[in-house]
Amino acid sequence: MPIITLTTDFGEKDHFAGAVKGAIYNELDEIRIVDISHSVSPFHSTEAAYIIQNAYKSFPKGTIHIIGIDSELNPENKHIAVLLDGHYFVCANNGIISMLTNEINPEKIVEINIHDRVETNFPTLDVFVKVACHIARGGTLEVIGKVITEVKELTGLNPVVNQQQNQIIGNVIYIDNYGNVVSNITKSIFETIGKGRTFKIMARTASFTKVHTHYSDAINFEIPKGKREEDGKKLALWNASNYLELAIYKSNPTTVGSAASLFGLEYRDTISVNFES
Amino acid sequence: MPIITLTTDFGEKDHFAGAVKGAIYNELDEIRIVDISHSVSPFHSTEAAYIIQNAYKSFPKGTIHIIGIDSELNPENKHIAVLLDGHYFVCANNGIISMLTNEINPEKIVEINIHDRVETNFPTLDVFVKVACHIARGGTLEVIGKVITEVKELTGLNPVVNQQQNQIIGNVIYIDNYGNVVSNITKSIFETIGKGRTFKIMARTASFTKVHTHYSDAINFEIPKGKREEDGKKLALWNASNYLELAIYKSNPTTVGSAASLFGLEYRDTISVNFES
Amino acid sequence: MPIITLTTDFGEKDHFAGAVKGAIYNELDEIRIVDISHSVSPFHSTEAAYIIQNAYKSFPKGTIHIIGIDSELNPENKHIAVLLDGHYFVCANNGIISMLTNEINPEKIVEINIHDRVETNFPTLDVFVKVACHIARGGTLEVIGKVITEVKELTGLNPVVNQQQNQIIGNVIYIDNYGNVVSNITKSIFETIGKGRTFKIMARTASFTKVHTHYSDAINFEIPKGKREEDGKKLALWNASNYLELAIYKSNPTTVGSAASLFGLEYRDTISVNFES
Repeated sequence: MPIITLTTDFGEKDHFAGAVKGAIYNELDEIRIVDISHSVSPFHSTEAAYIIQNAYKSFPKGTIHIIGIDSELNPENKHIAVLLDGHYFVCANNGIISMLTNEINPEKIVEINIHDRVETNFPTLDVFVKVACHIARGGTLEVIGKVITEVKELTGLNPVVNQQQNQIIGNVIYIDNYGNVVSNITKSIFETIGKGRTFKIMARTASFTKVHTHYSDAINFEIPKGKREEDGKKLALWNASNYLELAIYKSNPTTVGSAASLFGLEYRDTISVNFES
Repeated sequence: MPIITLTTDFGEKDHFAGAVKGAIYNELDEIRIVDISHSVSPFHSTEAAYIIQNAYKSFPKGTIHIIGIDSELNPENKHIAVLLDGHYFVCANNGIISMLTNEINPEKIVEINIHDRVETNFPTLDVFVKVACHIARGGTLEVIGKVITEVKELTGLNPVVNQQQNQIIGNVIYIDNYGNVVSNITKSIFETIGKGRTFKIMARTASFTKVHTHYSDAINFEIPKGKREEDGKKLALWNASNYLELAIYKSNPTTVGSAASLFGLEYRDTISVNFES
Repeated sequence: MPIITLTTDFGEKDHFAGAVKGAIYNELDEIRIVDISHSVSPFHSTEAAYIIQNAYKSFPKGTIHIIGIDSELNPENKHIAVLLDGHYFVCANNGIISMLTNEINPEKIVEINIHDRVETNFPTLDVFVKVACHIARGGTLEVIGKVITEVKELTGLNPVVNQQQNQIIGNVIYIDNYGNVVSNITKSIFETIGKGRTFKIMARTASFTKVHTHYSDAINFEIPKGKREEDGKKLALWNASNYLELAIYKSNPTTVGSAASLFGLEYRDTISVNFES
């Protein structure tokens, strides 16, 4: 059965997400709808990009992902449908998709041009649902749009490397439910630039000289519980998506505190890595 | 496959919504359950009414909508099932359904009378699920209730028009995820009373002389980005449900602010329209 | 169709829950996924235990429940799969399951040992999904783990009875969406110890001498509305799960206030019952 996923900034309360699901079932009986997130911060393209990038890969090839963020059609905000890595993405051409296209070349991009056929002031409901259901029925992208070759880029997605190749300057792109701080520094760029050298990661007053693979790797389980440093211990790790993440072991933002609150880090703040010269 | 939707004030955390879904699957294997919202403010009938009114229309005819708000049975709060506009609604007779019956005459209303057959202190789980599954199996309303002709009304749902027919006095019925403020003034009453006259909308210190159809209509895209008034611009528009809405362009309540916070508007506050005499 | 439920502390925003759902559909086309809760407080085993205990019973026998809380594998945190009351539970052996095993003897417990076959730093996605899908396909627990006989216990789950058998000392185990305060004192222990004697329940400054069965039982509907004590009235009741709950009638934490805020009660605070000697 085809799958349509939803990633939006509609929130958990309003009727928007429910209405979109109803509209899909109204077009297709044999369809599976999966909520990825409706709690993206309003109009926050980077958050949406991070979420969809990390969620889509788990789904079967052929899944159709609706991204309902900042989707009102206007002269500077067109609608697109993209085939990339075997998945379909239906969204506004506002940069959301560029985190994906940075990594993987899209197989096809079309600018949606069915707007003369649908009257709308709720484009996710009216336009994106129509397009997604068209794809779910096996329709081609060319029928609902004209092929284009590039998508709009989000700025500030990629870290910068200095000329001497001994420093990566990245920034915070996401803060997760545990208050862990995710940077845009990937394991791949870190290894390419670092070449195995020792390093120091700096984020405001916090610094790190090791990057773990699991949260628990930061804990020495040979020391008896109660005596060892554990809950509340700070650490850097490659998260499940291979981004450099600053974390607090078993952080509960309301009890031991979180990396974001304890290190004083917010979206867009700088995180840098200095390699030994 | 029949669809049962859920609109409740259970919140996102507790077991209530999960338990209700389990109970439905326990009765019916071939059923689709769709969450509309579990984040209605506790016991807030008007919010629930606004949400279900704007969500149900997207669903296929025959869909069964459970509304689990203030549903404990007591001498003043009976349970009803309503057939209206081809959809079924199962809820308490506490006014929630009156926003719908104001607009469209119900085809049938029954007061549910199966309580001798189910012991309950969680009526959404025990009573509403039973009734919804009965309907989903093709059962008639008469089997689970006795026909009544009227539902309890919610007060304050409709705006008031003055005798001279040059003023509509409405109020705030909903504040959405973006902090946009929805009034109970519909496009239909506005046009009936306004008859094309010029007007001024007033809400505390904010005023508006134009009502847009899309958020982007308030922006002049011919002026280059950066020079034009844009993010944070205030506007009035007919929202996707044709209610008068006061909004901030691309409002993020935590950054540019929202209409609710910037205009200082809360649920029940007055919004009025004065037409030129 | 088999059902897999999800109870996690992933929150509503991040990609985690979406990724897990995608991974399940990637393994199985004929499966139903039901979200129970993703809003358990981070690493809060007792909350998770309370939620799953109260949700699972509504589901059909054979349902598979993934509990994704504190699930990182380490020397002190193993993964288990449990068959209990005809339901399957897949989670870490961190005490979550002990609220269930306290009540009902498990039919089978295995410690999952497929970790050599899956590389992971997101165990709910990699390990739990694999195990749940294995069970959904009809696989046995022995294939994915070795039988063990006991699970780790959560401390502080059970109330204490004094030697004279005239006092039960319990504590707060959950605060629900309405701010109602749930204790670990069950109707069963209350009746066993109380033997019908008069009693006084004490929680900080609040006290109660009656336990209701429905919220509305606390209201005298013979007194006309407006004259009677109603919204905001405090009461004790056996909740739908037969735990002693302290509540405020129609409590909305942001308006009339909630039991938690008005009585000043938090997680782990003491609630005691004194019986007449």
